[in-house]
Amino acid sequence: MDDTTKKAVTQRLASAAGHLKGIERMVQENNYCIDVIQQIQAVQAALNKVSTLMLNSHLHTCVTTAIQGEDAGERERVLQEITNVFEVSSKL
Amino acid sequence: MDDTTKKAVTQRLASAAGHLKGIERMVQENNYCIDVIQQIQAVQAALNKVSTLMLNSHLHTCVTTAIQGEDAGERERVLQEITNVFEVSSKL
Amino acid sequence: MDDTTKKAVTQRLASAAGHLKGIERMVQENNYCIDVIQQIQAVQAALNKVSTLMLNSHLHTCVTTAIQGEDAGERERVLQEITNVFEVSSKL
Amino acid sequence: MDDTTKKAVTQRLASAAGHLKGIERMVQENNYCIDVIQQIQAVQAALNKVSTLMLNSHLHTCVTTAIQGEDAGERERVLQEITNVFEVSSKL
Repeated sequence: MDDTTKKAVTQRLASAAGHLKGIERMVQENNYCIDVIQQIQAVQAALNKVSTLMLNSHLHTCVTTAIQGEDAGERERVLQEITNVFEVSSKL
Repeated sequence: MDDTTKKAVTQRLASAAGHLKGIERMVQENNYCIDVIQQIQAVQAALNKVSTLMLNSHLHTCVTTAIQGEDAGERERVLQEITNVFEVSSKL
Repeated sequence: MDDTTKKAVTQRLASAAGHLKGIERMVQENNYCIDVIQQIQAVQAALNKVSTLMLNSHLHTCVTTAIQGEDAGERERVLQEITNVFEVSSKL
Repeated sequence: MDDTTKKAVTQRLASAAGHLKGIERMVQENNYCIDVIQQIQAVQAALNKVSTLMLNSHLHTCVTTAIQGEDAGERERVLQEITNVFEVSSKL
């Protein structure tokens, strides 16, 4: 992962973790359920963005290197991983 | 929210926040991108479960009370909130 | 389901089915894979809208009637169905 | 797209379109809303599978060819398309 992506991803993950701690307090203080659910959905949208940033970086680095390389097994492995991640994403 | 749900939701949110902090470390330590994305997807599945628990509790408490009540505006409000939460969920 | 929702839902389902037949032709004519995937995603967004319309109507009719009724088992059944539909939706 | 994938995708799209026509009849015959929504969700799961099949084929053909090629703009284009499709998928 390049440094710009690494920094952006780290900050977004820290922010999402902080957001979740805030949501935990909302639950303890008996906030309205719908408000809590909406905040959880906001965290999920933020995590989708993190995954997209990471996938984009991964495609430009490891995947490109593997596909330009000579190792057919390695090429197949990186492509299969992309398909798997996409399939799981469609089930979230 | 009943106490059982409140306790379960609080624990799951704390666990998800801890999981995200662990993922943040994975990124700082340059773990493989696909492994990081899969861990993020695991957190998202856990958050889906939290939202489902909260919605279930909300339906049995606030929504049931409102629909059995006399205030037509309040009935409409709680139903609209369910529809909105469902619609956002389908976009996550 | 009220007549307005029934008409809207029927039209949207017919439109989505027609869209899928068009996508089938795109595949047979060897259109670019990404274009095909994007069209499939458009159909899925349209189907999300249909489900939201139906859920909204269902909440205002069957669910309201059941919750205002005397049958505790029936109340529990309709609420559980909403939770289940929400849970499946979060996995799509 | 290779012939095996093309055949599988065509059959699945035709099946999904037929399924939607059946759901349209369910609505016209006033079937229970939750049953209709569950059938719509089944079609969406089937369409996720079609998209995954197509993406897998696309990665092994066009994407591999482009990344092994000399055209940097073309490489960037195919990678950006994957990221975009993933991002939209996470919003469905």
